[in-house]
Amino acid sequence: MANTQAELRPIADVARDLGIAKEHLEPYGSDKAKIQLEALATAERPPGKLILVSAITPTPAGEGKTTVSIGLAQGLRKLGRRSALALRQPSMGPVFGRKGGATGGGASRLEPSNKINLQFTGDFHAITAAHNLLAAAIDNRLHFEDSILDPRSVLWKRALDVNDRSLRRVIIGLGGSGNGVPRESGFDITAASEIMAILCLADSPADLRARLNRILIGYTTEGRPVLAGEMGVTGSLAAILNEAILPNLVQSREGTPAFVHGGPFANIAHGCNSILATRMALAFADYAVTEAGFAFDLGGEKFFDLKCRAGGLNPSAIVIVATIRALKMHGGLALDALTTPDPSAVERGLENLAAHLDSAVHFGKPTVVAINQFAADTPDELEVVHSYCRSRQVASSTANVFGAGGDGAKDLARIVVEATKAPPTPYQPLYPLEWSAEQKIERIAKVMYGADGVNILPGAAAKFRKARKLGYGSLPLCMAKTQDSLSDNPKLRGRPKGFTLTVRDVEIAAGAGFLVALTGDIVRMPGLPERPAAERIDVDSASQITGLS
Amino acid sequence: MANTQAELRPIADVARDLGIAKEHLEPYGSDKAKIQLEALATAERPPGKLILVSAITPTPAGEGKTTVSIGLAQGLRKLGRRSALALRQPSMGPVFGRKGGATGGGASRLEPSNKINLQFTGDFHAITAAHNLLAAAIDNRLHFEDSILDPRSVLWKRALDVNDRSLRRVIIGLGGSGNGVPRESGFDITAASEIMAILCLADSPADLRARLNRILIGYTTEGRPVLAGEMGVTGSLAAILNEAILPNLVQSREGTPAFVHGGPFANIAHGCNSILATRMALAFADYAVTEAGFAFDLGGEKFFDLKCRAGGLNPSAIVIVATIRALKMHGGLALDALTTPDPSAVERGLENLAAHLDSAVHFGKPTVVAINQFAADTPDELEVVHSYCRSRQVASSTANVFGAGGDGAKDLARIVVEATKAPPTPYQPLYPLEWSAEQKIERIAKVMYGADGVNILPGAAAKFRKARKLGYGSLPLCMAKTQDSLSDNPKLRGRPKGFTLTVRDVEIAAGAGFLVALTGDIVRMPGLPERPAAERIDVDSASQITGLS
Repeated sequence: MANTQAELRPIADVARDLGIAKEHLEPYGSDKAKIQLEALATAERPPGKLILVSAITPTPAGEGKTTVSIGLAQGLRKLGRRSALALRQPSMGPVFGRKGGATGGGASRLEPSNKINLQFTGDFHAITAAHNLLAAAIDNRLHFEDSILDPRSVLWKRALDVNDRSLRRVIIGLGGSGNGVPRESGFDITAASEIMAILCLADSPADLRARLNRILIGYTTEGRPVLAGEMGVTGSLAAILNEAILPNLVQSREGTPAFVHGGPFANIAHGCNSILATRMALAFADYAVTEAGFAFDLGGEKFFDLKCRAGGLNPSAIVIVATIRALKMHGGLALDALTTPDPSAVERGLENLAAHLDSAVHFGKPTVVAINQFAADTPDELEVVHSYCRSRQVASSTANVFGAGGDGAKDLARIVVEATKAPPTPYQPLYPLEWSAEQKIERIAKVMYGADGVNILPGAAAKFRKARKLGYGSLPLCMAKTQDSLSDNPKLRGRPKGFTLTVRDVEIAAGAGFLVALTGDIVRMPGLPERPAAERIDVDSASQITGLS
Repeated sequence: MANTQAELRPIADVARDLGIAKEHLEPYGSDKAKIQLEALATAERPPGKLILVSAITPTPAGEGKTTVSIGLAQGLRKLGRRSALALRQPSMGPVFGRKGGATGGGASRLEPSNKINLQFTGDFHAITAAHNLLAAAIDNRLHFEDSILDPRSVLWKRALDVNDRSLRRVIIGLGGSGNGVPRESGFDITAASEIMAILCLADSPADLRARLNRILIGYTTEGRPVLAGEMGVTGSLAAILNEAILPNLVQSREGTPAFVHGGPFANIAHGCNSILATRMALAFADYAVTEAGFAFDLGGEKFFDLKCRAGGLNPSAIVIVATIRALKMHGGLALDALTTPDPSAVERGLENLAAHLDSAVHFGKPTVVAINQFAADTPDELEVVHSYCRSRQVASSTANVFGAGGDGAKDLARIVVEATKAPPTPYQPLYPLEWSAEQKIERIAKVMYGADGVNILPGAAAKFRKARKLGYGSLPLCMAKTQDSLSDNPKLRGRPKGFTLTVRDVEIAAGAGFLVALTGDIVRMPGLPERPAAERIDVDSASQITGLS
């Protein structure tokens, strides 16, 4: 490892070098800080260039998108460029489930990684608390019968940042008339809370508050929509979120500044860090490296059509991360066959990369390919990818970010700098907001997923009609689709063809400002595996956390 | 108001003046910090004197125990004495319910009060997360059928820091075989979590871990107890609590240092701040002012028999807080009659004060009375109390802590200094641990509550037998009794006589290290009132929280 945590610079120095004034810094220990939003207006340089890192379709072999993002930002620093990261905070639930930590890896890792993976600065906890206070206020109104809300129509559930399948569907309010109104409900993981999406899309505290007020929580018995603002507690929700809305500053192992803030799900939500964190990175760096959840078909599309639209952002370049291992899985190999050299499997798997490169073209941004290098990759296999990229006139680079950090990403950084030399073309969404939801979905399905068409089931169609009637017709679409395939069938790797995308259900996320189109069973509350990571994590006698990353 | 928050000194300066080295300080912003436990060994002075602040039986008129504690510590500073506070962190749930803030008031308040009342440094959230990870691990074992735990015997519920009556009793695990095992369960507020009690009674990270392992979570079908340690995730719980176990340092409006840490319920738990926070205050100050929940009958007894026993603490003096208003209610007046001068009602109400003074004698510590002054108090009314105290040779003082801060408590501080001049007598618990649970309860009930005797219902008696059989017979008792009366009937003010204390149920808090004797319906999850404080709290355009305290 290049550095140990003990060698990190004080976060106050990292902030100072960025040009953030001391009075705008709220240190949380010596290694993390919150940045006051007033800092945004003090930046003394033109906004930096935004670089979006996305990936090919994920496989169990892993792509290391976050690790590449961190490595790239470090590589830019090695070239003498002023870079900063804008990344999501990991969700604590999955940390104790299957995933372990989620702060990059090896020499391209965020620090203090253990803290970022757990409590960090309390933002997820604040979102959980705000979410559940709204839920308690709703049931309190039902209990005192002073709301016209129909108990059977309540859409707002409760939230916890834990992997706990037993909470997915519950009956609450039992035990007699003193304990509320019995009704069916459930818990989502905090990352799936609409308040998480709201916090990440809000561009100011006032916007946060307005979005909280707009959350659709249910209907009256006459079918009139009831908004969160009517419960009278959104001021308290804003109070709970008063510090959570401030972006957090940490650094990578090599001292590259990183704004780590927010972490919405990438299926039922938009899957990227907060707009405010991205703005911080743009305000104080020349190159702001950010990331969008899952592969480009989901994360990239949402980044452009939801986040850039809401935040007035305009990326200068797209990086698509691939690994030889994952391409081989897309080429048909099994997980246990990946260490055997097999350039032809890589060749077959290129169709998945090709699909994402084709999709990226629609946003009109320069795109490069980063191969996240693993020890077992052979020169022949790597050359298959580079040769393909050359044939498409797409720059590509093999990056050894895990092993060598920024030094392993200098070449990648160079092609990114090259790609972003020209001023960016204007921001181009995939569809105009005036289109119908059905048209929007068809556009996304055909262009991003390669579907032949879209089948909107009757229940979903009725909900689209209802949404339109209620005035939500011009909201953009948030696709909830499996991340494991370009199609809506998680078993189909590579580049599936000849399929129809089926939309089964629709949700109105009026506070976040999008309609969610559900194309399958989307888990909003993960479960723990039989032997969860929680059984391997511990604290040693020096109070150091072990087994986490 | 004497100070505004803007005039507060940086917390780093407060810590430096206490003698806490910079490397042991983890600032959370400029106004709060966590203190590394290593600091305890660096104190260069003999440990300070511990002053326990308790109160008469609470009434809706309020006593302001926390406000007096803060005022007293400030008053000691005005006399040139080196004082520090050790206090509980308020629970966020009640802040949005009936209570509003809980950080003292007026010129005797902790700052930053809004932050302390909400997220603070995340300790309650960490406890919530640890509690619910253990719950998820238990249901995960049931789901995978690799535990011999009987699903119907699971004692461990879930926890949230919110007032939400609808979560008291729930059915979880619904929705089919993928969603766990359906069973009845519920949520307690985080302050009622056994992990809260554990964090507050642990005297080191190793002790914390050992206590987590010992939590009794349920039984096998054969009736064997199953401990949390058997679930394999207590290392992860300790990791989640790794920073939460560090005491927090803030200050009062007048700059008096305050270690604010932990906040267990005062009925089903022991109701005082952490042992580690008390140790910090003792290590770095000559006078450590601390507080115990509710009145002396509950809070004082538990402070001595649970906290002092677990932490090797030995108070030098006891302060009993009373108000003229509350004494008048104990004297039979209604809440709306309190502003009319009525010395004879005060006189009648003295019997409640007398009961607590009599109880305090059993611990062999000098005791003084503090009258927390309100504007409507008349000299005649105040003199009734002082005259009574003189007749008992108990020093007393009227303190105007809300209006005048430390200046209003200088006389109180003087009598406290006087009372603590002699070295403290050795620590004296109310009962030896070898006694049976029944003997312990009888002793507490007769001496502290004035009961004629104890009636242990058959179900409770059976549980005591079971606890003894399982090896928990020598644990001390934690009485869960209404705080509104010396008796177990919340309607009886003053000094009830001729009653029998009824023990209805028993719980084994093996991790916290006590048996809970339940004498009535104890609410572990409060509800919101019809018009909760949450409807009055807001954030203004300058991002300042309003309506909170």
